[in-house]
Amino acid sequence: MTATPPQVRINRDRLWAALMELKEIGAYDDEATGLRGVRRLALTEADAEARRRCVQWMTEAGLEVRVDRIGNVYATRPGRDRSLPCVLMGSHIDTVATGGAFDGTLGVLGGIEVMRTLNAAGIETLRDVEVGFFTEEEGVRFGTDMLGSAVTAGRIPLDHAHKLTDSDGRTVAEELQRIGFDGPEDERRPIPHAYIECHIEQGPILAEAGVSVGIVKGVQSISWQRLTLRGEAAHAGTTPIGSRHDAGLVAANVVVELRRMCDSGEFGQLRATVGTFDIGAGQTNVIPHHAMLTIDLRNPDDEAMTAAEQHLAGYVDSISAQHGVAVAWERMAKTAMVPFHPAIQDLLAQTAHDLGLGYVRAMSGAGHDAQEIAAICPTAMVFVRGENGGISHTPREYSTPDACADGADVLANAVLRLANQP
Amino acid sequence: MTATPPQVRINRDRLWAALMELKEIGAYDDEATGLRGVRRLALTEADAEARRRCVQWMTEAGLEVRVDRIGNVYATRPGRDRSLPCVLMGSHIDTVATGGAFDGTLGVLGGIEVMRTLNAAGIETLRDVEVGFFTEEEGVRFGTDMLGSAVTAGRIPLDHAHKLTDSDGRTVAEELQRIGFDGPEDERRPIPHAYIECHIEQGPILAEAGVSVGIVKGVQSISWQRLTLRGEAAHAGTTPIGSRHDAGLVAANVVVELRRMCDSGEFGQLRATVGTFDIGAGQTNVIPHHAMLTIDLRNPDDEAMTAAEQHLAGYVDSISAQHGVAVAWERMAKTAMVPFHPAIQDLLAQTAHDLGLGYVRAMSGAGHDAQEIAAICPTAMVFVRGENGGISHTPREYSTPDACADGADVLANAVLRLANQP
Repeated sequence: MTATPPQVRINRDRLWAALMELKEIGAYDDEATGLRGVRRLALTEADAEARRRCVQWMTEAGLEVRVDRIGNVYATRPGRDRSLPCVLMGSHIDTVATGGAFDGTLGVLGGIEVMRTLNAAGIETLRDVEVGFFTEEEGVRFGTDMLGSAVTAGRIPLDHAHKLTDSDGRTVAEELQRIGFDGPEDERRPIPHAYIECHIEQGPILAEAGVSVGIVKGVQSISWQRLTLRGEAAHAGTTPIGSRHDAGLVAANVVVELRRMCDSGEFGQLRATVGTFDIGAGQTNVIPHHAMLTIDLRNPDDEAMTAAEQHLAGYVDSISAQHGVAVAWERMAKTAMVPFHPAIQDLLAQTAHDLGLGYVRAMSGAGHDAQEIAAICPTAMVFVRGENGGISHTPREYSTPDACADGADVLANAVLRLANQP
Repeated sequence: MTATPPQVRINRDRLWAALMELKEIGAYDDEATGLRGVRRLALTEADAEARRRCVQWMTEAGLEVRVDRIGNVYATRPGRDRSLPCVLMGSHIDTVATGGAFDGTLGVLGGIEVMRTLNAAGIETLRDVEVGFFTEEEGVRFGTDMLGSAVTAGRIPLDHAHKLTDSDGRTVAEELQRIGFDGPEDERRPIPHAYIECHIEQGPILAEAGVSVGIVKGVQSISWQRLTLRGEAAHAGTTPIGSRHDAGLVAANVVVELRRMCDSGEFGQLRATVGTFDIGAGQTNVIPHHAMLTIDLRNPDDEAMTAAEQHLAGYVDSISAQHGVAVAWERMAKTAMVPFHPAIQDLLAQTAHDLGLGYVRAMSGAGHDAQEIAAICPTAMVFVRGENGGISHTPREYSTPDACADGADVLANAVLRLANQP
């Protein structure tokens, strides 16, 4: 590979200052870790405030800001030929309830920093360059992740998305309106020339390889299901063990079986998580008559994922029949493995090389907006190394200022190259 | 056994009418069963209304009513020699959240019916006869079962009981005052000559033996513990299986192990129930960092109970260490096996025989106020057969009018014999 000198370097301190400023919006004291975390669930007051701050920064950078009907926000830096499809950067600024400062945010603030850098260097591009953020990437509040990007990509109809409700029964449409982000723009945006998302890895691969950035090959398959079990309430002291219809016990067996499936190796690199497990108010001396749990499966191989889902369904049938408990499944989300665009991956790799940065190529363990946008235009991602084993979705999530800046440098120079492609 | 003719028969229709009337207080539509159930948690508005109705019936029967400082209510029918210790009947009228019409209530309304029967027959007794009901027998609201009777028996100090809180932080003392049942009487009541509690079996033994009543040999050992687990929140998609500290998974393993312990036979006739299992709000794509569960163990054998608790503690230490999850135990309640008084058991058996009723002797699977009162005076219990396998703590709980009346007939004649003992 021949090294071509990079055209720009982003301002490392300015990027870090923006990351530190945004993490104060939705900040909370996390009991489990003793650290200060970020709780900025989609379309809450905290999310609204963070959105307004980003829009302010976009405006200050001289960008043209627009909001679409699912609340996605885009900001444009005009190119010489505005008839050409733009180059889009983006990610999300909503977080889980126990979030950190980098997940999603890095891609958005990194994109804004790219714009500031192009401005400062007085660089003109052939194509428009855009930076955006998508609504409810985490799926924690309204139950469907990648919501904004999936609507934009046409996988989820706008009307369906608008009617999704949170645990208090409030709809996406109501909440968009309440926080003032129910924009007028068509949710099916103009097709970009390319999409690049810079994101923390949320895993250990880059740290183990001793590099600060990664080129993402694709996103593993993700399956979200909700399992509801109905048994029968009965007295804990008098009901013989063999006469019970214990919905909580069946649910617990499912959790244990899922872990066995992961450990067995029978289903490739399967990861399974039960993040929600609810048996209602609960009474110490009453056998639970109801249980609801969510099952999050991940697999880099679609066939192994199908095999895991089939085995799980059979197991649940068997264990619930054994205990006389009724079963209802609900599909919350399912995405196949998404491979990223080879030419964009190679352009990112060349850019990292030109910047003198070591890198590895890796699959993404987490879902990202890029997996949705990949359906409409050439797409790839830059990963940034995380510390502490790449732990994320906890206030312990951390990437160094240098790693964040390296990722943003790759983003800036790759976008510049793409934006000057005829 | 020689048959001595019974002295009285209770009014079967009047008893049934009272049972049917009281079940309307706190009635609710149960989704799981499609039946109408009773939700009358201790010291709620519903409990207060049921208490007032019982006090009204006691007063109408000419009884002297008094309330003690833990809200226990007693009503006295004077005997000829008021210096002698009384014969006490009683039970409770609070229910679980998914309760039926008979648990506890039968012993209280059966006792009131005995009083009405003695009045109607113009019978005078040597000793005072009392009927009472005890506060928070179920333990569902304030976390400690047998609360009122345990305070009366001196096992739980009044001050400790007063400070117990419900899930909203309201104390027993505040709630007693709010509903007007913070009585002036000393909670350490005068020691009775004997205590007899009539109660539904809540199990299948009587039905399987084809009899309507049972003589209770004692109450099995009961252990309530709360287990809190602290792991670490992390991303469901990116965190390798081997790097997780999943508090929910450890909790699920405990639930499954408890069932294995019951099935194994290693711990005698152990019954284990996890009625509460809480991992917080929960997020589909976040590994749970926290779990809380309650563990209800029952065993008719104290040694087998100790062995079960020790095995469980060892298992929890091992599984939590394996997953790097921190453990905290809290003891909610523990009672040893309580044998009832042999002479009172024999008197009840003789009474059933004299009434021409078949009976069996059986251990109680459930805890009862009688296990507390047994610490201060000779105590035994009459069981009444339940239908549907004796299922209880559900609106499906049901005993026939005849079975209820048979139990009350045994209660009436046994009390009469005890009340005339010099």
